[in-house]
Parts: sequence; C-alpha cells; structure tokens
Amino acid sequence: MDKIYIGIDIGGMSYKGGLVDNDGNIIFKATVPASSKRGNRQFMKDVKILVEELIKEAKKRNLDIEGMGFGIPGVIDSKEGVIKYSNNLKLKNINFVKQLKKYELPIYICNDANTSTLGEARFGAARGLKNVVLLTLGTGVGGGIIVDNKLYTGEAGSGAELGHMVIKTGGRKCTCGRKGCFEAYASATALLRYTREYMVKYKDSKMWEFCSDFDNYIDGSTAFEAYKKYEDLAAKKVIDKYVMYLSEGILNYCNIFRPEMIIIGGGVSNQGDYIIKLINDYCKKYNYGFKSTPAPEIKCAVLKNDAGIIGASLLVKEKIF
Amino acid sequence: MDKIYIGIDIGGMSYKGGLVDNDGNIIFKATVPASSKRGNRQFMKDVKILVEELIKEAKKRNLDIEGMGFGIPGVIDSKEGVIKYSNNLKLKNINFVKQLKKYELPIYICNDANTSTLGEARFGAARGLKNVVLLTLGTGVGGGIIVDNKLYTGEAGSGAELGHMVIKTGGRKCTCGRKGCFEAYASATALLRYTREYMVKYKDSKMWEFCSDFDNYIDGSTAFEAYKKYEDLAAKKVIDKYVMYLSEGILNYCNIFRPEMIIIGGGVSNQGDYIIKLINDYCKKYNYGFKSTPAPEIKCAVLKNDAGIIGASLLVKEKIF
Repeated sequence: MDKIYIGIDIGGMSYKGGLVDNDGNIIFKATVPASSKRGNRQFMKDVKILVEELIKEAKKRNLDIEGMGFGIPGVIDSKEGVIKYSNNLKLKNINFVKQLKKYELPIYICNDANTSTLGEARFGAARGLKNVVLLTLGTGVGGGIIVDNKLYTGEAGSGAELGHMVIKTGGRKCTCGRKGCFEAYASATALLRYTREYMVKYKDSKMWEFCSDFDNYIDGSTAFEAYKKYEDLAAKKVIDKYVMYLSEGILNYCNIFRPEMIIIGGGVSNQGDYIIKLINDYCKKYNYGFKSTPAPEIKCAVLKNDAGIIGASLLVKEKIF
Repeated sequence: MDKIYIGIDIGGMSYKGGLVDNDGNIIFKATVPASSKRGNRQFMKDVKILVEELIKEAKKRNLDIEGMGFGIPGVIDSKEGVIKYSNNLKLKNINFVKQLKKYELPIYICNDANTSTLGEARFGAARGLKNVVLLTLGTGVGGGIIVDNKLYTGEAGSGAELGHMVIKTGGRKCTCGRKGCFEAYASATALLRYTREYMVKYKDSKMWEFCSDFDNYIDGSTAFEAYKKYEDLAAKKVIDKYVMYLSEGILNYCNIFRPEMIIIGGGVSNQGDYIIKLINDYCKKYNYGFKSTPAPEIKCAVLKNDAGIIGASLLVKEKIF
C-alpha cells in the first residue's frame, strides 16, 4: 500500500485539502466552503466534512494515510495542538487536535504562513536551500523562516510573526495593537490604501481608467497596470511608496537572517519579475542591508494556491510540532 | 594531557585572550593593548604576540591546545577565515586564518557579538536554553542568535546584524548607510545623545550634578543616577525615550523569534534589574509583541568582560565556522 499525507489549508473563505504523495504531488484535491455561521463548533463541523472526504478517497485508492497536517491562520500552539487565537476565522482557544482524535491519525497543526514556507522550501522557489525567509503579502503580512533546513517557529510555535516588526516607531496603528508594523505598510491592504490616496489626490490619474467603481474595483494591480500602460505619474508614486516600505522590511530581514533567499508570496507576488526588479533595485542601493555581505536572492513564490496544502502535508512527513 | 581551548576577544582598545577549560573556566588570561599604529600588518603583529603568549603558557602547564577561536568586531567570513571589513578596527579584507597557519592549530573566527552570545548561552544567563537572542548595547548595537541550541550566523557568517533593523523608516542616519536603524536609537551612543539633548534643554536638571565636564563626563549612567537620587524630570525623559526605542526593538525580536530569552549586554546592561524592569513594563503593555503568545524572559548578560573569551573558545569546542 502506497503512503500518502493529508494536507489541509484553512483559509478565511474555504478549507482546501489534498492527498499528497512523497514527492509533493497533490493527487486528489477537495474543498469545503467556510460556513457563514461562525464559531468554534461550526468550524470543527466543516473541517470534519473535509477530513472525511479525504480519508474516504484515500481508502478508495487503497492508500495508507501517514497523518494529517493543517495550516491555520492565527496564533497556533503546535505542541499542544491548540488554535489559541485566529482573528481571521474568529476563533479562540480550540482544542483542535483533540477534537479530531477519533480519526486515529497523527495530526500536526501550524500557522499557515509557516506551512507555505515549508512547501516553497521543499518543492517550490527555494527547493534545496537551507536558510530561507518567506513573506506573504496579503490582507496582512505573514512570515515563515527556514533555518538550517528546518522550519523555525519559536516558543509554542508562535514566532515568525514577520509582519509585526515595527518599521516606523509611533507610526500607523496595526491590528496587533502596536504602531508602525511592517504589515501596516507592506500588506496588500496597505497597497490598496496608497492607491486610493493617490487616486483621490490625482483626479486625472490613469488609475481611474482601471477601476469602474472606486470602492470595489481597486486591487493590488491597479497602480501597476496604469503605470505599465501609460507611465502614469500618480501610479508611479503609489508603486514607489509601496516598494520603499516593502524593501525596507526586506533589508531588515537581510540583516537579521542573511538567508540564501527571501520569497515573496501572497497577492502582491502576482506582479512577478516586475516587482522583484523594483525591490532588487532598492535593496542594491543599500548593499542588501550591509557592506561586504552576500546578497540573498529575492524571488516570488511558485506553488501559489497549492503551497498551503503541500506545506501542511509536509508537517506530517517531517513530524513538525 | 588535559585539553584546553584558546579564546581571544578582539576589541577596539585591546586584545584579550585566555586558556579556557571544558567547563568554560578561564584558567589563564592575557591582554595586549591595540597599537595606536593602525593597519592590517600592525594588527596581525599584535595578535601574534598574544597568541604566542597563550601558547607558551599552555605548554608550560602541559595543556593540549585543541585550537584557537577569535571574536572580532565587524563583518567576518567565518567559512573563508577572512575579516572582510571592520569599521571599529579600521581593517579590510584580511586573510586572517591563513596568516596564523604557522601555529598549526585549528582556527575559528566569528563576529564578536556572536561569540558573546555563545558564551552566555552555554555558561551564562541563558545556560541550557535552546532559542536565545542577545543584544549588546555599546557604541553600536550588536546581536547574536541561538536557534535550536546552535549559533545562527547566516550566509558567510554575516547575519545577526540585529542593530541594523530599521525601526524608524526615514529616520536618523546610521553608520551602515541606511536611515532609522535600531542602533541609531538604542545604542549607548544614542543614550548619551538623549542625555546631552535634555541637559541642554533643561539647564536646571540634576543631571548636571553628575557631570563636571559636559563633553567628557556624561556617560550611560548619568540620567539613571540623577533620576534615582532626585527623581529628576529631565532624566526621566531621557530614560523613557531610550527605554521606548529599546523596547520597540526588543518587541520586534519577540515577534520574529519568540525566543525563550532575550539577553541585554554591553555597557547599558550595567543598569541591571533597574532597566530590565522598565523594559518589561513596556513590553507587557504590548503582550511581549503579540496576543496569546509566551513572553520571553528578558535578562542582563552575566559573563560581562569574560563572555568574549569564553565564547571564542567555544567556537573551537563546537567547531563552528
């Protein structure tokens, strides 16, 4: 009987799971939409539906399940198997692993940015590298760290909160309660804020052309598209401001970790080589953080939506808790 | 024949070395003053004088030297055995290890903040802990990281530049070329700057009593002494400002590493429990970085001047390069 790992990526809108083989291939995928009814009990119900579908499929295919891994947004205590707090999912103190005991499988849980990092390090952009930092630029800024070929998560698995490094003391209020966090300046949310700011300020900006409805149709690509097509000045200001803050944070992580690679994931990474060049230009000006030191490669994530499933399955394979 | 490790701590004013036993005890110490004549050649000459004194002493005591370890301020390529750049010592591109080849001993070199960290983790404040961050608050801010019980130094041993994390984008110019680094706000140098600023602003401050000569006799303790004795308002402003910036940086390292302990070393740590309480009070307000996460212990370094020698000897013992 062939071995298989279950990897499950818990998101705000849906829960995605897969059967993943030893080489990181997803051989079966399933999705359950997140119920609009929130709360710990409904959440566990939805998760169990997905788990049961995956187990059934594995049995049908005569595959031997090694265990289940979960990537979950929030503060996760991997050792105790507890979701301590998830702002995104409106969850608090769930004894997650205990509640899935009846499936009689080894279960591993971890913060979702950590699982993505693991996926990218083993089967994605940083395949084979030993020291890697990943930043996911989405609603917030998540992070993951590979040190000496191993996922580093800190005490109770609650480190690598790379979005919550203050880069502007006394600056913009962050969701975490501090002021001036990297997340408040370099998330996709911040990019949208800059876009709106400059659109309001520059009524003749071509950015307006890329958005039929100011409240709903601005997205992370609005400024990039307007600049690429028209060399729009206001769009350039948006991009420059965003790239400056993002790069300052990246330079910090160059200095702290001096990793082989820094990976950019999340929606913003859809800008691909275009944004990577801008970041590299900025970082080069400052010698990637420090004189006489090697420059980390800066790259976009490649596994995209599959990183979460693959990464979560790796928690099982590598027995990480 | 008993085994012994040579540990050498290269400083701006002097080079200190010792014979260190397996339990971290310095059984013999020697010092060579740094020659006022600067330059690569003079530097190597001075180092060799110290090395030869230590080797001679070991032979006299019939001790078997396992190797020599050096902690050096600057950008050190531990793998290549090269001092790439040392602002402090005015050195550039020295093939250090090669030039000591004639002693026929294994030689290890590393940044001095890293060696201090290693010393504190094995025989000092963090004895027995696995995940530790050390910050040395002196002329600059140095740093060291222990991850999973091992010293982490990044590519070419050039990571852990923990003083060069920007905490105020666009802020004060730093020696590294960037603006707003932690070092520019939380070094002892910054503390002296705040002290001078508030003394000039508050001519009636009791801080003047603790300094007979404004240019020469202000030090890192001036504000602390004036506040402790008189509850001087201007002194309090100095302390509050310094503790705020220092704690913001510490909170960043809580979020990034979530270590078991953060150690404060360097001159500022002479304030001991007094400053630790102030830092803890500030960090508590922000849940040590993040809700629902364990609080790292914050402690002063304990090995003081010996940390460098002991730590350097550990490079040999643990074969770190």
